[in-house]
Amino acid sequence: MASRQLNPAERLDWLRLIRSENVGPVTFYQLLRRFGSATAALEALPGLANRGGRRAPLVLFPRAAAERELAGLDKAGAALLAWGEPDYPPALAAIDDAPPLLAVRGNGALLGRPAIAVVGARNASANGRRLGRELASELGRNGLVVASGLARGIDAAAHLGAMAGGTVAVLAGGVDIVYPPENQELYEAIVAQGAVVAEPALGTVPQARHFPRRNRIISGLSLGILVVEAAARSGSLITARFALDQGREVFSVPGSPLDPRCRGTNDLIRHGATLTESVDDILAQLPAGTADPTRSRPPPAPPASLSWAPTSATGEEPRDSARDQIAERLGPTPVAVDELVRQCRVSPATVVTILLELELAGRLERHPGNQVSLR
Amino acid sequence: MASRQLNPAERLDWLRLIRSENVGPVTFYQLLRRFGSATAALEALPGLANRGGRRAPLVLFPRAAAERELAGLDKAGAALLAWGEPDYPPALAAIDDAPPLLAVRGNGALLGRPAIAVVGARNASANGRRLGRELASELGRNGLVVASGLARGIDAAAHLGAMAGGTVAVLAGGVDIVYPPENQELYEAIVAQGAVVAEPALGTVPQARHFPRRNRIISGLSLGILVVEAAARSGSLITARFALDQGREVFSVPGSPLDPRCRGTNDLIRHGATLTESVDDILAQLPAGTADPTRSRPPPAPPASLSWAPTSATGEEPRDSARDQIAERLGPTPVAVDELVRQCRVSPATVVTILLELELAGRLERHPGNQVSLR
Repeated sequence: MASRQLNPAERLDWLRLIRSENVGPVTFYQLLRRFGSATAALEALPGLANRGGRRAPLVLFPRAAAERELAGLDKAGAALLAWGEPDYPPALAAIDDAPPLLAVRGNGALLGRPAIAVVGARNASANGRRLGRELASELGRNGLVVASGLARGIDAAAHLGAMAGGTVAVLAGGVDIVYPPENQELYEAIVAQGAVVAEPALGTVPQARHFPRRNRIISGLSLGILVVEAAARSGSLITARFALDQGREVFSVPGSPLDPRCRGTNDLIRHGATLTESVDDILAQLPAGTADPTRSRPPPAPPASLSWAPTSATGEEPRDSARDQIAERLGPTPVAVDELVRQCRVSPATVVTILLELELAGRLERHPGNQVSLR
Repeated sequence: MASRQLNPAERLDWLRLIRSENVGPVTFYQLLRRFGSATAALEALPGLANRGGRRAPLVLFPRAAAERELAGLDKAGAALLAWGEPDYPPALAAIDDAPPLLAVRGNGALLGRPAIAVVGARNASANGRRLGRELASELGRNGLVVASGLARGIDAAAHLGAMAGGTVAVLAGGVDIVYPPENQELYEAIVAQGAVVAEPALGTVPQARHFPRRNRIISGLSLGILVVEAAARSGSLITARFALDQGREVFSVPGSPLDPRCRGTNDLIRHGATLTESVDDILAQLPAGTADPTRSRPPPAPPASLSWAPTSATGEEPRDSARDQIAERLGPTPVAVDELVRQCRVSPATVVTILLELELAGRLERHPGNQVSLR
């Protein structure tokens, strides 16, 4: 698949499709693969949702609303990058649930450079902030862009430290919504000197559920993630978990057992993260020449499953017996899609289609590691 | 080999043999194996040293001096444990260069219980001292004895924390020489409630070369060693190295990269030591029931190489050609004894004998991992 720009009509339909009810990134790419284009997928959506057991008709995201969002992005000086386009961040393109569309303000060219995520506690210690700032700054001097989440504490320190070397802030809400508000000034500085990116619609105020989604983008943009101070069961550990699922390196700064803000980072090290005292510990784990600007970077590896040509648009309908078999095996506990395929005597393509229908009907939830459960 | 007490004449000759010039523990056990008893080895020593190239006759440690030392130990209320005796610490007995004789003041029964070494920086931080004390105390509550070196900082904190649970101080000099002098009170407390052990002769004032020798005993006494704060290239890392060579666990407390006193402990973790925030991290690595006083402990595993019956006392003399071959292959860089055996076409027993002669002549130095070099 050659990398190319979407035309305006395609971009509009991509936006309508990803903003339609019950369509997440994984479903988006499956629909694209099944129907060959967002336009065809939009037409098929209501029928699929009905077959999945939905009673009320599925409402597509209105064309007018999509046009308003595109105009708003334009007015805000934001670009909307589509998966597969040349400017789309290559590392992010390689994850299974890459955002089909990503809004960007600022210097989008930074997204093409190798990045390390630097994240950590919001209530970071003075020493933790200092370390975050210094390590981010040193990453910049070594040619690496620093990605983080614009949060208080370590995130803010990392963005500040990396300002000269290049930094990318990933927002949990819309690209125009600064959260926390106290970081307004930092946001403006990053728009001016770095890049701000966001997956949700313009104007979206971030809610709790948005943060894990945001965290997968922080790690997805990056070759590895460095955690500087994190309490047990904190958001930074979720980001580290995403990094592992995405096959990215996890780096962690050790700290005193007497400081609860180091409980999470020490635990990461105990479970295999690279103990990190300096940027050398990070560079040692990256392929040689990763950050060398004189070397051209390797082309992004597209997700193996994605193709823009329809692959199963022959229109063969799953039989009801197959639907029953799969429904019977689903429950509130996540189960691997591969396991469903193994247990039911139906083709993988059929299983995928049935799951797609259930998801569009709002009955299926997707989990990391290609697992699914009933809602 | 059944464990038994030495009789007084044997004990005197053991003491004379280990105190004789150029006789270290490894040589001591080889002599015992070669000649069947310390008495026979003492008779053979001058001849061996001559064949190894020594010109001046080798002076054996005088009988009167050994008698004085035994009387002095008795007066100081110290026992002298011999390798292989029932009271000799079982874990220590298993290392290649276990002290043939070990002086003990205080509660020698502690030496039969499972121990963990707790060591670290002399210039420890307040937090480090607190951690050392608390972890040592918690080890005691879990039935483990704490071994350390009576140094300032972490060592002293560990002894204090472990006082109720049982603690063993290993001295670098004689069992009667308190170093550093400021720890006189701690020394007295340990003699009263714990145990103090030492390998060098009574009255020996510790010098730099004694400390690594002492450190091998600290780790040798222990199932594992916990390092709490240690700078890069510090003595605690030498103890950790001994622990690895002896097949013991290494535990290390992480700390901030901003604190140089954590450089060494972080580095240990980077190289495979168990990251340790609490005693649970230690217990998880020990065989279940290790510290359970209701379980009888397994008998100590004696070094595979030691037997009290002479094994090569047939008196076969190495030929000069064999001596030349080996001398040619030795230099200032340590070489493995196994490698010498492989390269020279002579029997392992002959290589051992020739090396023994060179050592007694003062020409050979032994290194960890059964390596040797010329002095």
